[in-house]
Amino acid sequence: MIIVKNIEELLKHTKNLDSVGFVPTMGALHQGHLSLIKRARDENRTVIVSIFVNPTQFLEGEDLDKYPRRDLADIEICKRADVDILFMPTVESIYFEDELRVEAPAIRGFILEGSRRAGHFNGVLQVVMKLFNIILFNRPKSLRAYFGKKDAQQLALISQMVKDYFLNVDIIPCEIVRDSSGLALSSRNAYLSADEVKEALAISRSLKRASKLVMQGVLDTSTIEREMRDVMKNLDIEYIAFVNRDFKKIETIELKNSTILVACIVGETRLIDNIWI
Amino acid sequence: MIIVKNIEELLKHTKNLDSVGFVPTMGALHQGHLSLIKRARDENRTVIVSIFVNPTQFLEGEDLDKYPRRDLADIEICKRADVDILFMPTVESIYFEDELRVEAPAIRGFILEGSRRAGHFNGVLQVVMKLFNIILFNRPKSLRAYFGKKDAQQLALISQMVKDYFLNVDIIPCEIVRDSSGLALSSRNAYLSADEVKEALAISRSLKRASKLVMQGVLDTSTIEREMRDVMKNLDIEYIAFVNRDFKKIETIELKNSTILVACIVGETRLIDNIWI
Repeated sequence: MIIVKNIEELLKHTKNLDSVGFVPTMGALHQGHLSLIKRARDENRTVIVSIFVNPTQFLEGEDLDKYPRRDLADIEICKRADVDILFMPTVESIYFEDELRVEAPAIRGFILEGSRRAGHFNGVLQVVMKLFNIILFNRPKSLRAYFGKKDAQQLALISQMVKDYFLNVDIIPCEIVRDSSGLALSSRNAYLSADEVKEALAISRSLKRASKLVMQGVLDTSTIEREMRDVMKNLDIEYIAFVNRDFKKIETIELKNSTILVACIVGETRLIDNIWI
Repeated sequence: MIIVKNIEELLKHTKNLDSVGFVPTMGALHQGHLSLIKRARDENRTVIVSIFVNPTQFLEGEDLDKYPRRDLADIEICKRADVDILFMPTVESIYFEDELRVEAPAIRGFILEGSRRAGHFNGVLQVVMKLFNIILFNRPKSLRAYFGKKDAQQLALISQMVKDYFLNVDIIPCEIVRDSSGLALSSRNAYLSADEVKEALAISRSLKRASKLVMQGVLDTSTIEREMRDVMKNLDIEYIAFVNRDFKKIETIELKNSTILVACIVGETRLIDNIWI
């Protein structure tokens, strides 16, 4: 595995590539990331993983400084997962002074995550567009980029960016990975105490409850939401939302075209989860 | 010459290209455009010209509807100039609903042209990023894009976009083409009456005067500006500006690193011109 810290170095190692699988991450890798890397490994000649805690997607007062950083462990994980190139750029190599910015559309960018975290998605799109272009710079034959469904809104916006700006990248959505108790894996789970982990389980339980209701034929979202709130009655719920794959809000579940999303605060940690129905 | 009207068609004709020279235009082609096309022809295997009157760079109340459109004449000009592919997309094939947008940085984007025409450059950058990505989609071996120095601020912003977003495109700045009287060629010159053309000549005369002063050793911009205003005393001057190649305002001319810019209203037509010193 080659570890590169800046773009010039990366470009030396990306000449004449055939199929490339790219997994952009913020590090603190867990089984969720690993599932993306494994799939990238299965489907491509070259696997590139990036680790970059992107400052522009953290808002004032958010956890940029305390965001978990575990470079040595991450490097080991990538080595064992047979990653070809691990790209760990410095902030200075990605960002310049007085930059052009990308602005997420209001309709998908400033609801839910984007409403509580105004500007968050602008930063996500900015860095993902840069990273895609860096990997595309030397014209690989194909580029597939792997994203978890856990960040469903992010995934929808990145897919839209690829379409709106004609980027020749295949976005591959990957299943949410959960621990044995059902908790969706997240780097931010590291912030949770043992008690908080137990409390947090109500989130995935509420989504399972929702899924069961849908299977029983309950498609009305307000009924489903009521039952979900009941399951999460001890949690500080930020939102429960029902959207179609286009990320437009729905009143009635459309089978194979709906996502139910939850955001909660557990202790001081904000957790999100969702289910695709 | 192949004429294509949508992206799918274009992509069919851009497979396995070697060097590509790209000249994005809004049509109403004149000798200025032709000089870009000729240079693209000289330097590349394949020449692609686009004609697209980009709605997002026109502001409310600007001349989008009356902007000169001369498709048949333009097609003839491109044929004679040995263009390989003429790309004339519809608005619907370039733009979608609720799009992600690109925002020019305040420092270069909202001064001069960007201050009088707020949002203009956001639209320019948006369409140029799309067009670059469309041409890059099938991974040509190289891509050079040709822009006139006449739109100096646009050129500076596009160069910045290419750097900020790691686009593998060489931006080639090309000299301003003038008619025998000195008037910088522009599609908007078509709006001028014969009398207005005569008045407009004071613009290029003022730039020549500035250049002469610099050659005589006058580097103080306020002195130069005073003399330029005198030459253009009968014109409605919007701005005279002195910037370095980085598009930062300067008080003293730096040789080989300065641009003097002028914007004037002649009759009802807004004209810009500049000189690189």
